[in-house]
Amino acid sequence: MSKKAQKLRIIPLGGLGEIGKNMTVFEYGDEILVVDTGIMFPESDMLGIDYIIPDFKYLLDKRDKVKGIVITHGHEDHTGAIHHVVEQINAPIYATPLTKGLLEVKLARGGQSGKAKVNEIKAGDTVQIGVFKVEFCHVCHSIPDCVALGITTPAGLVVHTGDYKLDHTPVDNWPTDYTKLAEFAGRGVLAMLGDSTNADRAGWTPSERVIEPAFDKVFREAKGRILVATFASLISRIQQVGEAALRHGRKMAFVGTSMRENAKMAKQLGYLDLPDELLVPIDEALRLPPHEVVLMCTGSQGEPSSIVGRLASGTNRQFDLLPTDTVVLSSHPIPGNEESVSRTINKLFQRGAHVVYDPVEAVHVSGHASQEEMKFMLNLVKPKYLIPVHGELRHLHQHAAIAQSLGYAKDNVAIVENGQVIEFSAGKMFMGERIPGGHVFVDGSSVGDIGPAVMRERDALAREGFVLVNLRINPQTRKLTREPEIITRGFVYQRESDELLAETRRQIEKTLAEANGDLQRQLENKLRDHFFDMTKRKPMIFVMVNSN
Amino acid sequence: MSKKAQKLRIIPLGGLGEIGKNMTVFEYGDEILVVDTGIMFPESDMLGIDYIIPDFKYLLDKRDKVKGIVITHGHEDHTGAIHHVVEQINAPIYATPLTKGLLEVKLARGGQSGKAKVNEIKAGDTVQIGVFKVEFCHVCHSIPDCVALGITTPAGLVVHTGDYKLDHTPVDNWPTDYTKLAEFAGRGVLAMLGDSTNADRAGWTPSERVIEPAFDKVFREAKGRILVATFASLISRIQQVGEAALRHGRKMAFVGTSMRENAKMAKQLGYLDLPDELLVPIDEALRLPPHEVVLMCTGSQGEPSSIVGRLASGTNRQFDLLPTDTVVLSSHPIPGNEESVSRTINKLFQRGAHVVYDPVEAVHVSGHASQEEMKFMLNLVKPKYLIPVHGELRHLHQHAAIAQSLGYAKDNVAIVENGQVIEFSAGKMFMGERIPGGHVFVDGSSVGDIGPAVMRERDALAREGFVLVNLRINPQTRKLTREPEIITRGFVYQRESDELLAETRRQIEKTLAEANGDLQRQLENKLRDHFFDMTKRKPMIFVMVNSN
Repeated sequence: MSKKAQKLRIIPLGGLGEIGKNMTVFEYGDEILVVDTGIMFPESDMLGIDYIIPDFKYLLDKRDKVKGIVITHGHEDHTGAIHHVVEQINAPIYATPLTKGLLEVKLARGGQSGKAKVNEIKAGDTVQIGVFKVEFCHVCHSIPDCVALGITTPAGLVVHTGDYKLDHTPVDNWPTDYTKLAEFAGRGVLAMLGDSTNADRAGWTPSERVIEPAFDKVFREAKGRILVATFASLISRIQQVGEAALRHGRKMAFVGTSMRENAKMAKQLGYLDLPDELLVPIDEALRLPPHEVVLMCTGSQGEPSSIVGRLASGTNRQFDLLPTDTVVLSSHPIPGNEESVSRTINKLFQRGAHVVYDPVEAVHVSGHASQEEMKFMLNLVKPKYLIPVHGELRHLHQHAAIAQSLGYAKDNVAIVENGQVIEFSAGKMFMGERIPGGHVFVDGSSVGDIGPAVMRERDALAREGFVLVNLRINPQTRKLTREPEIITRGFVYQRESDELLAETRRQIEKTLAEANGDLQRQLENKLRDHFFDMTKRKPMIFVMVNSN
Repeated sequence: MSKKAQKLRIIPLGGLGEIGKNMTVFEYGDEILVVDTGIMFPESDMLGIDYIIPDFKYLLDKRDKVKGIVITHGHEDHTGAIHHVVEQINAPIYATPLTKGLLEVKLARGGQSGKAKVNEIKAGDTVQIGVFKVEFCHVCHSIPDCVALGITTPAGLVVHTGDYKLDHTPVDNWPTDYTKLAEFAGRGVLAMLGDSTNADRAGWTPSERVIEPAFDKVFREAKGRILVATFASLISRIQQVGEAALRHGRKMAFVGTSMRENAKMAKQLGYLDLPDELLVPIDEALRLPPHEVVLMCTGSQGEPSSIVGRLASGTNRQFDLLPTDTVVLSSHPIPGNEESVSRTINKLFQRGAHVVYDPVEAVHVSGHASQEEMKFMLNLVKPKYLIPVHGELRHLHQHAAIAQSLGYAKDNVAIVENGQVIEFSAGKMFMGERIPGGHVFVDGSSVGDIGPAVMRERDALAREGFVLVNLRINPQTRKLTREPEIITRGFVYQRESDELLAETRRQIEKTLAEANGDLQRQLENKLRDHFFDMTKRKPMIFVMVNSN
């Protein structure tokens, strides 16, 4: 065996600012285990990008070594890239029943149902995946059926918390499995990859139950319909809204394909425990008196194409907002979505609806551990080394500060960026090489061919626009044989810029008269100065010189 | 006197989502009083826009009727458009000493010192401005020397709160003037325009003093230099950092022109009360041992061109970050800046600095009243009518809900958008007409010529880019006489798109062979389909057909 083969290598991949959020690679000798296959949504200056997947080029050379793919829970940022991964890598997938259900809905939509086998595991199970013995440990989050992982390797036991919170009264009454975590500690944990999302929040994250009084208030006071917007995968929120509807005598309907499909699947699997008589199809709901109905829909992030987004802009086909409607946004804006959520709320108010959102009422609560829970997790699992993951660099630093406040030495906490290989051998942690581990843009049907160069062009076009000049000249006299054709986009309002364009024509004629050598370059330079002088802006400039 | 002349008209103008934030017009008969002349910063999808000013076209026809311009305090969103206004409207300006100082720094920079006269007033003063008797009432905010206004008109007394909080222990020890507000109430207040910024925050906004322990902790723990980033106009924060520096034996230096100029002016006017021996020039500060220095600089919003922005990207000329530096971001992200602030924090960590920011430490506190303060203000001033201002529509609705919880009838609260005229006559409120009262984009040297059409073009370019095809054909044979010239920007990475471009050439030849009639249009349509088929994207397409 080579020296390299005796090391355990852990590599956080993908994410956008966040580290090890969407994918993590465990490698020992010739065997690889992949944890999660998630996507991220673009930040607001990533122009035109649909979504972002982890750069998993590293795995492509080693695709035969991948023994399995484990998905910790059913949220998009852990599952959303599954169809990109299964196209490249043929390995068994492991997930709990709800996560499996959500993966299968996703694979079926992409026409890939046959392509990948999802093996059902349950919290408490142990599965040998190549050299890795993976134990699944139930944790609470904002979706049921989440697992942390205890991964026993020849180098030692590594715990991956997944996304978690320590909720003593979760909606499904299934608290985090402290016994299992303590058992890991008893065996000795070499390293823990720990969720850092809320590392800058003091105290404990409140239980999911705290939102019940807020929903009761909404249901008590609403005079007409109630529309609750949240993520289609937030199954426990759907359960809570259903329970409120039962308490207050309203029927419940699901609006939109993703909400309907997920709810159906979750109900079949028993994760949504609501009586059949509570649920009505949407067209029936629309015929009922408004005060007898609650509609569950998507759009809590202000996405223009979602139900709530379309209601806010008055472009929903099936039904419109009523002035007596109460719209509840039951989620926090994902970073980068704050503006779009604010605008949506304003537009809903503008259309006469009453809008309820956090912080006006406590209609949402985080699914991630806060500082005191992170301390609890560290003291419970007692890892020798901590690798803070799931968070931006600043969150990893705060997680590290928390560990240090518990007595961890600085050297026992690895703050790394995506693609940094962390190696373990002889019970010690070392930094390995840095591999490409960033993100890949998905835009239309293209995966990865939109890189920084194209993004820079889009940014420049977005800020200043462009000017296109098409000339026909007599090559001998260098005189125009036709009026120049000038097209601008994103630069000035062309119909009101006669003066600017007339002056541009004069500049072209003057430059032609004086020019020698490369006409095109001289014209472009001249026009660049000209436009800057007149507008203090710098559009892209293209001059086509056609000789007659 | 016409019927119209007997009415008081109040018109909130400008703002971006926020209502009546940047400018408010009071009109009675033939006389107009303008309150504030502020700017807003563009939201993240307002591509290439420098800043935004209120649309005050309404005033241009009536410019001779404007009797005065009152500025409530020195923040950009209340002062920043002053040079645009004085270019169009010649009327005396009134402001308290610090606000006057900040206005004069601003006018001098724009070369307009001579153009506008700023009259100094003090809280407690009364000034007759045309038909309007304006009484200035001290209020607390996050900058010293702020005033609310009591405006006595023939139609009644109207109170404009300006930006305020009810801070009992402000940094300048000058609490809000409750006596004056109560006196207004005693005389009977027809209407109040009330700050709604924090209408969705429960409780009381903490005093500015609460940040002192957080700063003491930072100063106690910092091993090297401390850099505090905030707004250059946040004079009271500069005072607090100076006091902390005194307590902990550090020297203080101001970095950057705006910070230096504002601090100098505020010190001269007595609003910054710091001993001379505390302050050192920046080059001297850079020569001192790091643990003896605190640097005040701009960049708390992550602006790439600010000192902190340049330190984060490693492009600051005068000095670099040191690994022992502690950077304190002492402000909240303005809505829309969240991403840029997060990235800056991450980059500072990446460069090895220790970064302190809210919520990790309480190094910032809001300058606006929360819900309980709003209730207090309503019960103290006792206006008959409330016009919630300074906030997005959702905040105005929350402010209205607060008023209703105090017993205000729905009809006595006017939730309006910018440009909605509110009329008062015979002690009653009526809705008048709606005038253009939105915002105007400033981009380079152009004010207002970037409208929705250009913004749509920029957005399209930003999302999909463009393709430019320059053809030379024989008009008789319709055959190419030269290889087509194809240029793309923001669409695909041209150097890696040989196949796409080769196929594009084939499509052009095919279309030319089959086309009849408008060649250009047929080519553009054909290429649109072609690019969508191949990429699922829709770039802008321009085809130039040059006949030979």
